[in-house]
Parts: sequence; structure tokens; C-alpha cells
Amino acid sequence: MKRGALHISGMTKGSGMIQPNMATTLGFVMLDAAIPPGTLAPMLARAVGRSYNRISVDGDTSTNDTMLVLANGAANVQPSDSELSKVGDALNEVMEDLARQIVRDGEGARKLVTIEISGSSNDDTAERLARSIANSLLVKTAIAGSDPNWGRILSAAGNAGVPLDPAKVDIDLQGVPVCRAGLAADFSEADLKKKLDETECLIRLVLHGRGTGSARFWTCDLTERYIEINASYRT
Amino acid sequence: MKRGALHISGMTKGSGMIQPNMATTLGFVMLDAAIPPGTLAPMLARAVGRSYNRISVDGDTSTNDTMLVLANGAANVQPSDSELSKVGDALNEVMEDLARQIVRDGEGARKLVTIEISGSSNDDTAERLARSIANSLLVKTAIAGSDPNWGRILSAAGNAGVPLDPAKVDIDLQGVPVCRAGLAADFSEADLKKKLDETECLIRLVLHGRGTGSARFWTCDLTERYIEINASYRT
Repeated sequence: MKRGALHISGMTKGSGMIQPNMATTLGFVMLDAAIPPGTLAPMLARAVGRSYNRISVDGDTSTNDTMLVLANGAANVQPSDSELSKVGDALNEVMEDLARQIVRDGEGARKLVTIEISGSSNDDTAERLARSIANSLLVKTAIAGSDPNWGRILSAAGNAGVPLDPAKVDIDLQGVPVCRAGLAADFSEADLKKKLDETECLIRLVLHGRGTGSARFWTCDLTERYIEINASYRT
Repeated sequence: MKRGALHISGMTKGSGMIQPNMATTLGFVMLDAAIPPGTLAPMLARAVGRSYNRISVDGDTSTNDTMLVLANGAANVQPSDSELSKVGDALNEVMEDLARQIVRDGEGARKLVTIEISGSSNDDTAERLARSIANSLLVKTAIAGSDPNWGRILSAAGNAGVPLDPAKVDIDLQGVPVCRAGLAADFSEADLKKKLDETECLIRLVLHGRGTGSARFWTCDLTERYIEINASYRT
């Protein structure tokens, strides 16, 4: 085994029926490092948890999904234990990129929406908050209409089934503070509406006094085109 | 107190943001029977559980809801203990009717969809199955398109988080068997498509070998109009 560069590449498929654990998704990632299956499997599980299992197009799931990682050793490089964590990070990065592409390519989607939660009691709680926001039709239609409707975001968070005190929630949209301590922040609605016309939107929700849990999640806007597609074909 | 007829009437309000426990709903029911609060409250709780808490327009909830029952005794009739159960049934019936009206009037809805589950291990499981079907965007868009897509129904049921063996599931649409033991039944797709154009749709799902749990649930189809409404106004 020599020392040297490793390569990683991947491809994926999705459309609707996307809220993995996992759903109508195919994903393939190839590495040329020599990594034994017993080492690669937990790396894959970790990366799936932070990428493919953190996306939603329509909240529907499917009986069909595949996520394969192959490490064929063609580079003739066997990462050391300390290097393996870098390979794991690279795997995360590639799979996150693929997962985001699935959402961006979601049925009828015009916008990729990133949801960032921080300050929750733990990562699992943060993920539940993010998932609830990601699957709210009212949030997804507000984004479609470039409507800085933070009330819908707060409401969806409140519906996540986890303890939430609105008075300890801040929300930013496209980096603009729209809600502070559960109340409207002072912002220009017209300016923000324009920023929300972009093809990437960022919703950031920060809790105070809970902990250091965090999560990122990706969803898309819900447009008439989604309805058109799914009301008009027979599977 | 004399014996005689009792009257019951009600009114309600809803639109979107409807998946009670409870959500952007107002409901008022008036009786002229003399029923003390301590007796009326559990009757109301039972009726809410089978009506207002069994509907969904978009799966979103709200911080604003009210369900009031008034019994002012104007009829000068005090039901006996045995008669109270009939009053309870009347209350159920009125509130179910009001709840169905909310769904029929849902944002962009063209169709009222009744979901009936039977044969599950208990009523709670049946309700979870029904709710999962009711909130599936793929089921709701299939109904919008009069598409007898029982696969989406089975898939949504499988996503309810309760044990489900597809081989022990039968599904009827508009009274037409479309799935038997998890497989396609022999039916005319063209005829059924026509039946699904009606403004009321019935999805019946029967489990075998589980128990006698059952539930009814109401939802509506998801149309372009819902998107149009919710992507274009600012709350």
C-alpha cells in the first residue's frame, strides 16, 4: 500500500415520494481507498443519518430505496485510523451534496430550502423540529410565494412534539432576523421577499436555554407543478 | 322539568391549517337540554375525539382553536342517565357533520374524502393508519386526479409507524375492491376513475387477523388551488 490521494464520487436518483428512511432514492458512492466492509458500514450509517435521512420532498416514503458505498482499493491506499475520520468527512460531504441534489430536483421544486436548528436539548430533538418545519405545507407554500412568514415556521416547530417555548426562539430567513424571542423583528418585508425569490433559501431557528443540540435538514418549496405531476400520472 | 323534545344545533369555521388537536377551528354547539357541566364535559371530549380530532386539510396545526358546547336548559328537559347516551350520540352526529363541513370547505378542496379503517389491533392504531393516509400528499393528489392509485394508500398506511403486513390488507375505493391481500384486484380503471370524479370519495382499508379496532377520518384532495391560496397571502 502506498500513500497518496484518494478519490470519491457518487450519483443519485430521486423525484417525489421523498422523505427517506429512505424513499424512492438510489444512491451510489465510489471510493478507491481500501476500506474493509466492517469499517465502511458504520461510516455509511453515520453519513446516511446526516444526509439522505435529512431530506424531504413531500414527506411520503417508499418501499424502494438503495444506498450503496463501494471502496475498491484501486488507489492502493489504505487510510490509517486517524485518516479514516477524514475519509468519513469526505463521505458525509459527498452524500450531503447528493441528498441536496435530490431535493433541488424534487417534483415541482423551484427552491432548495436548508433548515438549520441549534440550541435544542439534543441533536435528535433538533432533527424533529427541522423535519416538522420541512414537512409543513404552509411553510413550503410560503417559500414558494417568497412570503417571509415566520409565524408558519414557529407554528410548525411547535407542532414537532417536543417542548418549545416560543419566547425563547429566534428565527432568521436568508440571514435576516425575522423573529426574536418569539416576536416579530424589525425587518423590511419587501427586501426580504426579494431575497426569498432566490433558488436557495435558508431558515435558521435558534433555541435559547435548552442545550447544544443541532441539525441541518433540506426540503423544497411546494408548487402547483407538484400537484400537476402527481394528480396526472398513474403509477 | 317536563319530558319532551330536545334540540341541538351548531356552527363551525375552518379553512386551512387544519389538523386538529385542534387547529384554526371554531366550533359552537347549542343544546336546550339541562345538562350540568360535569356531565357535559366528558360527552364533549368523546365527541371531539371522533369528529374535530379526526380531520385534516393540510396536516398543519394552529395555536388558535375553540370548541364550545352550551346546554342552557331552555327546553326545561333534563335527560335521565339512560337518555344521556342518546344526547351524546346526537352531539357526536352534529359535531361529525360540522367537522366534515370544515374538510369539505378546506382550502382548494374539491372532494371530501372519508377514510375507514377496520380490523386493526385497536382504535388508536386504526386512527394512526387513517391519519397517515389522510396526510399523504401522494394520496391527496391522486384523489385530486381521480386516480385509483391504491399503491399510494397502502404505502401511506405502511408509513404510519404501526405493524402492517401488506399481504393482510384489503382496500376498496368508492366501494370497488382495488386491492386484495396486498395485490391488485380485478377492476375497471376507467369506470373507477369516473366514480372518483364525484365530490365524495370513500377509502376503506380492512386488515385481517389483527383485531377489531376501527376508525373513521376525513380529509380532502390537494389541488393547485391550495398552493395558489397559501403561496399568495401574507398572514
